[in-house]
Amino acid sequence: MRHAEHILVKKYGGTSVGSIERIENLADRLLKDVARGQRPIVVASAMSGETNRLIGLAEQIDPDYRGGAYDMLVASGEQVSISLLSIALAKRGLRAQPLLAYQAGIRTDSTFAKARIQSIDSSVLLGLVQKGIIPVVAGFQGVDPEDNITTLGRGGSDTTAVALAAAIGARECEIYTDVPAVFTADPRLVPRAAEMKTVSAEEMMEMAALGSKVLHIRCVEIGAKYNVKIHLRSTFEDREGTWILPEADMNTQLEQPVVSAVTHDANTAVFKLFPVPGGPQFLASLFERLAAKGVVVDIITQSETNEGQRLAFSVTKEDIPLSRQVLKDFVEAKTEVSLIENMAKISVVGVGMRNHPGVAARFFSVLARHSVPVHLVTTSEIKISAVIDQANLSAAANALHTEFGLDRA
Amino acid sequence: MRHAEHILVKKYGGTSVGSIERIENLADRLLKDVARGQRPIVVASAMSGETNRLIGLAEQIDPDYRGGAYDMLVASGEQVSISLLSIALAKRGLRAQPLLAYQAGIRTDSTFAKARIQSIDSSVLLGLVQKGIIPVVAGFQGVDPEDNITTLGRGGSDTTAVALAAAIGARECEIYTDVPAVFTADPRLVPRAAEMKTVSAEEMMEMAALGSKVLHIRCVEIGAKYNVKIHLRSTFEDREGTWILPEADMNTQLEQPVVSAVTHDANTAVFKLFPVPGGPQFLASLFERLAAKGVVVDIITQSETNEGQRLAFSVTKEDIPLSRQVLKDFVEAKTEVSLIENMAKISVVGVGMRNHPGVAARFFSVLARHSVPVHLVTTSEIKISAVIDQANLSAAANALHTEFGLDRA
Repeated sequence: MRHAEHILVKKYGGTSVGSIERIENLADRLLKDVARGQRPIVVASAMSGETNRLIGLAEQIDPDYRGGAYDMLVASGEQVSISLLSIALAKRGLRAQPLLAYQAGIRTDSTFAKARIQSIDSSVLLGLVQKGIIPVVAGFQGVDPEDNITTLGRGGSDTTAVALAAAIGARECEIYTDVPAVFTADPRLVPRAAEMKTVSAEEMMEMAALGSKVLHIRCVEIGAKYNVKIHLRSTFEDREGTWILPEADMNTQLEQPVVSAVTHDANTAVFKLFPVPGGPQFLASLFERLAAKGVVVDIITQSETNEGQRLAFSVTKEDIPLSRQVLKDFVEAKTEVSLIENMAKISVVGVGMRNHPGVAARFFSVLARHSVPVHLVTTSEIKISAVIDQANLSAAANALHTEFGLDRA
Repeated sequence: MRHAEHILVKKYGGTSVGSIERIENLADRLLKDVARGQRPIVVASAMSGETNRLIGLAEQIDPDYRGGAYDMLVASGEQVSISLLSIALAKRGLRAQPLLAYQAGIRTDSTFAKARIQSIDSSVLLGLVQKGIIPVVAGFQGVDPEDNITTLGRGGSDTTAVALAAAIGARECEIYTDVPAVFTADPRLVPRAAEMKTVSAEEMMEMAALGSKVLHIRCVEIGAKYNVKIHLRSTFEDREGTWILPEADMNTQLEQPVVSAVTHDANTAVFKLFPVPGGPQFLASLFERLAAKGVVVDIITQSETNEGQRLAFSVTKEDIPLSRQVLKDFVEAKTEVSLIENMAKISVVGVGMRNHPGVAARFFSVLARHSVPVHLVTTSEIKISAVIDQANLSAAANALHTEFGLDRA
């Protein structure tokens, strides 16, 4: 598409709009962007802390409630931030229009709290841009076919931004955040973590799936599918960050490391069920029901013992209430269900693993060397993950980061 | 219409949903209402304090901004309260659906911050009620023909409720608030103020126009026009409050007091302009421009002096920014504009005044007896108002209340 030549979708996270002062600063930056010829489409998250505040209110009433009212509630956070940012832009003589999902034509399915974007009507946004108006779009939200407000799950504003860029045919999308780049590991956990100049969309998706909070997985997926380069950069520094590139754009990289990053998720929980009925039917029904509720089951292990069949699966902490509800409704009383909350998942990711065998052996020997027991394991072509005790997370992450040569010089 | 026989529109103000505990209490009450056969349509305001918090955020950026972003911002308050109330109802096994203006089909004009309802599509609400679902509607908001969010001005949730009642053909509408009734004066100002069992819509409209905060004027107007009785009552006590009745329903009242109530507005401001161009054209243009911005000009006085023509008019404090903006754009530099902020308006209201001459004389002699200077005056068939200094408000209100025999026994 031709429309998008000077149009740039710019997404700002919660810290970028976290206070009136920051909103004013952001408006100043956008004024400069416009002065140098950019025609921005802005996507904003809720002011930092606001989404948690709203979730806290809902949880005081009913921690297990999920449904349309929850989505309507939390979507109000972005409504506030885009309104305030639009007022700040107007104060600077810019024409700006805040747009909620129903106004921007962001249509999703009806999976409350975890909806997926189905279509975006780009004509509204392009129409505004052509009139010289800056669209300021609420991230994180959509409307379903019955006009109910839906939300895209944590980090969903990134997805909104990249989906908008794809919808208007833009070749890149800027994601402004409070970190300057994607790192080879979380620097808070691994002090020697290094910034990455580029990372392939495929690796980034694995990293997001494995617990990296930097980018929402759906956003990277959409970027890869629609060939949108994602430029993740800091709101507070005026330098380049990390480019998340579709596969085609990675071909220029001659040398690829075996492992590109060490990722972790400290919010893993494991459900154990014993005894469960044998045969595939029980498992199929259980995981169908969990999926229908939008629970992402991560690692599953199953084993036969003399006393009966054991099942264990991991979910993120966020999904515990929904999982519990499904288990309560579905599992018969004679099956004992236990929940272990203080688990973490540690992973290594790298497209280079495809051409280098023996990564798994190195991975497990590092863990063994540090006496880290492994509870659940899963691997794919480009990653190895293990669920371990939270207490061992730091030691494991730093040891793996060193082992695979990722430590900052 | 037949639909509405068991359907009752119930509006709850900010204090009724002011905390999670109060939302839970309200849900308990609604559960009881449903148990005794009511089919409620709920309208809710924002949690108390929330609208002010949001306005405060906007004003930190630009105290004079008015436009679509402002309305979108403040409308988020009701979005939060109706979502939370719906979650609390769901927890009690009731089916509830929160509805924003665009979902409930509440259409308004495009006067941001003071929009007027133009139509309501009652089919959505009645459809839900017929399915046994409690609609929980966001008060205070609408959508204009371009799908922008609009707001109805302070107290607009009352208007939403009565307009909904009218749209579904209901004969009455309950407004739950933090006061138990309409009083003959504000009890905080006049300790001997008494509760009113009934009040005519006409008087109530005057009282609202004159500063009574109990009910929004548009709400009473709509009640009168569509023959909806408004029952104002306390959220916290289970007894009847005040019925605001259309004229027809007042015929049963044999004896009417001369003055029904003393009303005040402590937030009056007076703009004085001197000298202004002579002739009607200047005044016509000025007040047209103020009206176009949605400023309600209250009392206007104009006088010729040797030095030129003087103009004074009063507005509510809320309208100062807009008024100032219009004056800045319209009035030429040689005209001096001054603003006096600490004024109050004191009024007596009563349909009985129609048949009893001499009320004005008694009104002014009371003020004179208490040495209260009068700055601006206006009268109608059923009220007399004077703008006085805020410092004299309490003395004047109490003296008038006693003079017209309104003191509680």
